[in-house]
Amino acid sequence: MTPGLSKNDIIEYNGSVVIYIDRRRRRLLRIHRGGTFSSDRGNLKLDDLVGLNYGSKVKTSLNIDAWLLKPLLIDYLELGIRRVTQVIYPKDLGLILVLLGIAPGLRILEIGVGTGNTTIVLANSIRPDGHVYGYEIREEFLRVAQTNLEALKLNQYVTLKLKDAREGIDETDIDAAVVDIPDPWNVLDSLHNALKWSAPAVFFLPTMNQILKLFEAVNRHRGFTDIRCCEVFLREIELSSESVKPSTTMVGHTGYIMYARKVFKYSNAKA
Amino acid sequence: MTPGLSKNDIIEYNGSVVIYIDRRRRRLLRIHRGGTFSSDRGNLKLDDLVGLNYGSKVKTSLNIDAWLLKPLLIDYLELGIRRVTQVIYPKDLGLILVLLGIAPGLRILEIGVGTGNTTIVLANSIRPDGHVYGYEIREEFLRVAQTNLEALKLNQYVTLKLKDAREGIDETDIDAAVVDIPDPWNVLDSLHNALKWSAPAVFFLPTMNQILKLFEAVNRHRGFTDIRCCEVFLREIELSSESVKPSTTMVGHTGYIMYARKVFKYSNAKA
Amino acid sequence: MTPGLSKNDIIEYNGSVVIYIDRRRRRLLRIHRGGTFSSDRGNLKLDDLVGLNYGSKVKTSLNIDAWLLKPLLIDYLELGIRRVTQVIYPKDLGLILVLLGIAPGLRILEIGVGTGNTTIVLANSIRPDGHVYGYEIREEFLRVAQTNLEALKLNQYVTLKLKDAREGIDETDIDAAVVDIPDPWNVLDSLHNALKWSAPAVFFLPTMNQILKLFEAVNRHRGFTDIRCCEVFLREIELSSESVKPSTTMVGHTGYIMYARKVFKYSNAKA
Amino acid sequence: MTPGLSKNDIIEYNGSVVIYIDRRRRRLLRIHRGGTFSSDRGNLKLDDLVGLNYGSKVKTSLNIDAWLLKPLLIDYLELGIRRVTQVIYPKDLGLILVLLGIAPGLRILEIGVGTGNTTIVLANSIRPDGHVYGYEIREEFLRVAQTNLEALKLNQYVTLKLKDAREGIDETDIDAAVVDIPDPWNVLDSLHNALKWSAPAVFFLPTMNQILKLFEAVNRHRGFTDIRCCEVFLREIELSSESVKPSTTMVGHTGYIMYARKVFKYSNAKA
Repeated sequence: MTPGLSKNDIIEYNGSVVIYIDRRRRRLLRIHRGGTFSSDRGNLKLDDLVGLNYGSKVKTSLNIDAWLLKPLLIDYLELGIRRVTQVIYPKDLGLILVLLGIAPGLRILEIGVGTGNTTIVLANSIRPDGHVYGYEIREEFLRVAQTNLEALKLNQYVTLKLKDAREGIDETDIDAAVVDIPDPWNVLDSLHNALKWSAPAVFFLPTMNQILKLFEAVNRHRGFTDIRCCEVFLREIELSSESVKPSTTMVGHTGYIMYARKVFKYSNAKA
Repeated sequence: MTPGLSKNDIIEYNGSVVIYIDRRRRRLLRIHRGGTFSSDRGNLKLDDLVGLNYGSKVKTSLNIDAWLLKPLLIDYLELGIRRVTQVIYPKDLGLILVLLGIAPGLRILEIGVGTGNTTIVLANSIRPDGHVYGYEIREEFLRVAQTNLEALKLNQYVTLKLKDAREGIDETDIDAAVVDIPDPWNVLDSLHNALKWSAPAVFFLPTMNQILKLFEAVNRHRGFTDIRCCEVFLREIELSSESVKPSTTMVGHTGYIMYARKVFKYSNAKA
Repeated sequence: MTPGLSKNDIIEYNGSVVIYIDRRRRRLLRIHRGGTFSSDRGNLKLDDLVGLNYGSKVKTSLNIDAWLLKPLLIDYLELGIRRVTQVIYPKDLGLILVLLGIAPGLRILEIGVGTGNTTIVLANSIRPDGHVYGYEIREEFLRVAQTNLEALKLNQYVTLKLKDAREGIDETDIDAAVVDIPDPWNVLDSLHNALKWSAPAVFFLPTMNQILKLFEAVNRHRGFTDIRCCEVFLREIELSSESVKPSTTMVGHTGYIMYARKVFKYSNAKA
Repeated sequence: MTPGLSKNDIIEYNGSVVIYIDRRRRRLLRIHRGGTFSSDRGNLKLDDLVGLNYGSKVKTSLNIDAWLLKPLLIDYLELGIRRVTQVIYPKDLGLILVLLGIAPGLRILEIGVGTGNTTIVLANSIRPDGHVYGYEIREEFLRVAQTNLEALKLNQYVTLKLKDAREGIDETDIDAAVVDIPDPWNVLDSLHNALKWSAPAVFFLPTMNQILKLFEAVNRHRGFTDIRCCEVFLREIELSSESVKPSTTMVGHTGYIMYARKVFKYSNAKA
């Protein structure tokens, strides 16, 4: 359970709920006295939901079924987070978690926090003994990131810094890093200093120009190996009784994922 | 750091190392006295590696560069695990982690453990306070799964059961479930009983026939909502100095991912 | 050159032109006296375009560059055709042309003409000695198809029939067939009678349910072999000076293409 | 019917046949006296096939069904052509046909003929009044291309030239062009001179580096507009009675398709 998400099975005041009618009509709400959920499929009075079990089905004012779901991380990512910047999608975040081996106890560096979407997933995964160090140069984004982390009570696992990573990283002994800035070639030295020996970093790159430029820079730098690059597609399948088929619309591109591990620049070995 | 993976920065006897020459020549080895790494790019005596720092570069007997990397979860998944069955790929596992909100402390149900590939990723993510309950009906697979978990010292977070999930699940209050068996429609009742209210399950489905059959069964069952389905593609990008391009060969299909959350079957609400 | 498209290099009254400002601002127009092209990037008086060479660049009233292009088949498909029904996309049409070996002189059967989008491409490819026989049961669609074919002067190569193909096909000795109806399993006998021995047919199938049902029916029918199925994705790459990348939005699905060739149902051979 | 392919319905000596057992066991053969087809599913004496109808089913020496199919263009592309170079795939060729509006009567320029795979498809589509002009600088490829075209009796519609297109194209008034060489930026002037006003060209580009370099060159050249780029994926669906699913292996990449139309370099218009 993500810390800020309800630990209860019963809907309470100031708790959150996902009201789910169908894929297009689902909303993440905080329950407050006198509040209303309204949709083209009818309304619900939030007061009426208090005391109900998560998982319950209720009827809207138009007699349409609505389910009351306990919010999960994915709901928060899809419905609840305040975004100002472009975010890394769940399909990419998932692969990044596995590629980096993100797990409880790790010390993670994030360069380019934006509004904290990735930070939330990282922080939730390294709890309670790990830590995320997040660098961001735009103060207004950092404030939103802070708010998002506090809403999920994940802020204690994160240190956000208003600082330009190109000028250096304060931390060392970092287990893994996520870099999501437009000019990642400018942080290779900072990154190399911060990472543990043979620790991995992932770079999120929207354009082909960035792949070419970063690959050239990483090669020239010589302090990284096991360099890989890939992209992930997610295709939704629409389910209805007589017609199961892939969705007509699809996100065709988010970004490329490049991966590399820190090594010594020069042969240092007796072997 | 995954528990069974080295906590050290220095290569030691009985520790593990990834010897990386290039994308096709990389191997996960345990360091033992008198051992040898051999490849078409030359050999290495393992004794010579002891005492070196992870991240070091050495020369093979043919004077080719080889890097010594500290094994990560992804190395273990790609190079180290003993597989007997078809496994869920990192691209799918990653999305499953995010869709289910897998995080420290959760109680996870896995129906269809196979040889434990998915179990490892789940166990590593819910440490130290969570637990994975894994069901499998083929004893020979369960034994391999147990060995794989022990190798990574993750077995303490997992209870493996030689038991047919179609006949019921012993646990209740499960936070999230992964179902990877050929006939998931036969475990819907067991699954519904085991899950917490509004908790999610993911089904891994190789064929279109299974999507159609499971979707029909889930609909008839009525105890699930927020039913979605998708598939994930991963395309590798080949990096070389004058030629960056997607890989010619690609895994075109692993399986579809269906997702659903447990709800009350009947309206139980005053609203 | 498609017959109805201009044979001239000079823009004339009653001729057509594509006015191209950028990918989003391009329009296929007929030149008529006193006409105007208007856009958020400025207007053009059509009278001013008469006498200009195709390929010319002019300035709109807002001093923006606009190119005057001679319409091609692809412009007609993308910009010019009147559509009432869902059409087969260029990416799918192209593969269908190659799979069926569509070429000058062939006799083609089309079951499910719709508004004639596919018919245009087929007719344009079998000219001048081939012929397309098109079946459609909805009269209003057939009228639009006829108008579309006449606009491109392709109608002489096509016979459109308001007739239910399930009740039989009048023609025999057909070289290749395209079937785009919701229930293709109901025309297998008609199709088998119409095709030449070993001639191919392509079925366009939007849903997984249709694949499963048609494959079962074709197997039961026994009169077809070399049965294949595939799907085609097209991903656009956005080009701009510092940022080349795949388009964020993409058509995720149009339909599956199934392919089969007519054979004798029973062993008839001395071999 | 492609000219060199059989016009008959009966298998004859010196004619061709596709012997089809299953997707993996299919072969395009010429029937000669005393010849044999042999496979791990049994053999056939070719003399026994003479006189049979195309579409017939026969039994191999191991009593396995084999179908006798009349070869189509797609069989020739997949099974019959002699290839020395990398070829453009049917999925890409199909889209190129539609993008360029290839049709009977057109004059087509092909820069980079290779061994004539694309040439065959173009020649077959512009018959009988159109013509393909093919440029290639490697004599040994040109000889194979010539042989391939003669085998299909398409050579009368094609003029092959052992000539470097970078030094100029002899023809003008070209309706459409296909460019498949490593350095297409070096033929932009030649191409611009050869094409009709507003006529289209397609460039086949395996790498991202080529996209970036060609796009920059086309922009600098200023003589082209409606510049687009895309890539096409083809995913095969495996059909078997209880298991319909996309193929595990897939061609992940062949090349990017860039498209542009010739325009005047400078404003030449009174408008």
